Amino acid sequence: MDDVFAVRWSDDPPTVRLLDQTRLPHTTRVLECRDIPTLAEAIRALRVRGAPALGVAGAYGVVLGAHTGWGPVEAAAELARQRPTAVNLGWAAERVAAAGSAPAALLAEARRIEAENDVACHDMGRHGADLIGELIGLPAGVLTHCNTGTLACQGIGTAFGVARTLFDRGALARLWIDETRPLLQGARLTAYEARALGMPHAVIVDGAAGSLIARGEVDVVAVGADRIAANGDVANKIGTYPLAVVAARHGVPFLVVAPVSTIDPATPDGAAIPIEERDPEEVRTAAGEAALTPADSPAANPAFDVTPAELVTAIVTERGVVHEPGAAAIAAHLGVSTDPAG
Amino acid sequence: MDDVFAVRWSDDPPTVRLLDQTRLPHTTRVLECRDIPTLAEAIRALRVRGAPALGVAGAYGVVLGAHTGWGPVEAAAELARQRPTAVNLGWAAERVAAAGSAPAALLAEARRIEAENDVACHDMGRHGADLIGELIGLPAGVLTHCNTGTLACQGIGTAFGVARTLFDRGALARLWIDETRPLLQGARLTAYEARALGMPHAVIVDGAAGSLIARGEVDVVAVGADRIAANGDVANKIGTYPLAVVAARHGVPFLVVAPVSTIDPATPDGAAIPIEERDPEEVRTAAGEAALTPADSPAANPAFDVTPAELVTAIVTERGVVHEPGAAAIAAHLGVSTDPAG
Repeated sequence: MDDVFAVRWSDDPPTVRLLDQTRLPHTTRVLECRDIPTLAEAIRALRVRGAPALGVAGAYGVVLGAHTGWGPVEAAAELARQRPTAVNLGWAAERVAAAGSAPAALLAEARRIEAENDVACHDMGRHGADLIGELIGLPAGVLTHCNTGTLACQGIGTAFGVARTLFDRGALARLWIDETRPLLQGARLTAYEARALGMPHAVIVDGAAGSLIARGEVDVVAVGADRIAANGDVANKIGTYPLAVVAARHGVPFLVVAPVSTIDPATPDGAAIPIEERDPEEVRTAAGEAALTPADSPAANPAFDVTPAELVTAIVTERGVVHEPGAAAIAAHLGVSTDPAG
Repeated sequence: MDDVFAVRWSDDPPTVRLLDQTRLPHTTRVLECRDIPTLAEAIRALRVRGAPALGVAGAYGVVLGAHTGWGPVEAAAELARQRPTAVNLGWAAERVAAAGSAPAALLAEARRIEAENDVACHDMGRHGADLIGELIGLPAGVLTHCNTGTLACQGIGTAFGVARTLFDRGALARLWIDETRPLLQGARLTAYEARALGMPHAVIVDGAAGSLIARGEVDVVAVGADRIAANGDVANKIGTYPLAVVAARHGVPFLVVAPVSTIDPATPDGAAIPIEERDPEEVRTAAGEAALTPADSPAANPAFDVTPAELVTAIVTERGVVHEPGAAAIAAHLGVSTDPAG
């Protein structure tokens, strides 16, 4: 069994170790980052990706900086600017930098961030697995999209962590893995993790999910989220929305599993979420090598889609479950009153 | 502009010419078949595919046989056995073989089959384009799946032929082309045809179609069919069903375009249509080269899905339009009474 991790700190010599995700699943290469430029390149080149995993990488990166002549604030800024839109990266690096200047104090704070993240993943896994048991009974066939496991989170993951928790309880019938074109995070990364853990699984093309749901092979759909609006609308990897529509038609629960930090009270609804349009070359090719279309074919490549709250059975966070999410239920979950007079 | 065709007959010397579809879109290679074994290999290796195109290839193949020492019946049997489930191949080859033994008589019958097929495609295109004008107004943005154009049909095609007819009328806003994993007939073949014809188009990953429909970019979805049951349920390439579900949610018409011969009165409904499970290696790879998943990942690969009639706005055949298809409307279209006392 391959050991799956996103980020590891090693003391002697001070090293941030990354499993190079650009080489997976075919080559298991551990990248030993012993200076800030090497780690910065790895972050920029997506050798480590996923919001929580980037946070952990940034946290240990500040510790690495302190061992190699960087000031903590300076190291945090250098790491954060490699992925300016990855909020978690800058947040975690700055939190460690604020812990002082002694390497031991920085390391303690970085370890705390990693541990908090582990706990949050385990709590999401537990809440999600409990919910699935209540909603549909066990064992359950779970369908997921993209990669939301250890490679993205360092902990056991969000939606993947729920499936893993079911598996640990002997209650996972099978994990159906959408390949998740164009970048194939499901085929490349989630399949790698499921295989390493010995979970029963099968990869499918994204277009096959609807048919499997219609045939009763899927008991629950569980996905992560890139951003959750205040009203419960969910932005996630392109291809999520049709899963929710088909699941609703067949009465199959559709669960969104994400840490509370994914919920953005400043975004009123899905219409306010900007959808990144990425390089059409990703659609014209597969796995960075095979050319699929004519070389000059026009292609559209929206990176995310928005699933309206009405199609979401529940949002699962580390704090628990938001059933039938809407503005009031989400505000209550966040501990914020929606009552203007409150 | 590249000349797009599936099959062409050439008299001097007697030759069945095929555009080798296994090399598209990157290499335009015309295969000159001057004997039955060469044509048989091409059929077996999917260098020509699509029910109507296979029929035309089989028809001219019997003529080729007569020029190279084969009896017509013998040649028809040899060609038909290369793709035993491709009913159109055997049907067309046998029809030509029944036309006599003189090469000129065989050639006349083969040309008749090709011409009938051309006419049927043009009629489907006209009926479909007229219907879209009535349903939603023009110009229209059309989304399609798989390849249903000249490469599949020799004529202008079925669903693709409708988009092409709109384009010829100056009424096609854009053709959205699902790449159609796993075999990528949309990215490889439909994009090739749209480009050759100068049609405005864009390729998308299959998972992006739902989001484009939700954003109002798609005015109508038009797909072909592998088989239509007596009650109007439609079996088509995997990934069709979720398009129909999302289209229905957004009030976008969902049209199935197919010749009358696709309707099978002996199949009562979609549940009676066997779904072929193909080689999982197709899911594990792309374009026959890029390995996507771990090499030994389990994968499921259903080739088709079934869209229930209630999600089909209309079925368009060469005879006209079946609105809100159901058993009675389809039987009427076929000219068969469903009244047991009738």
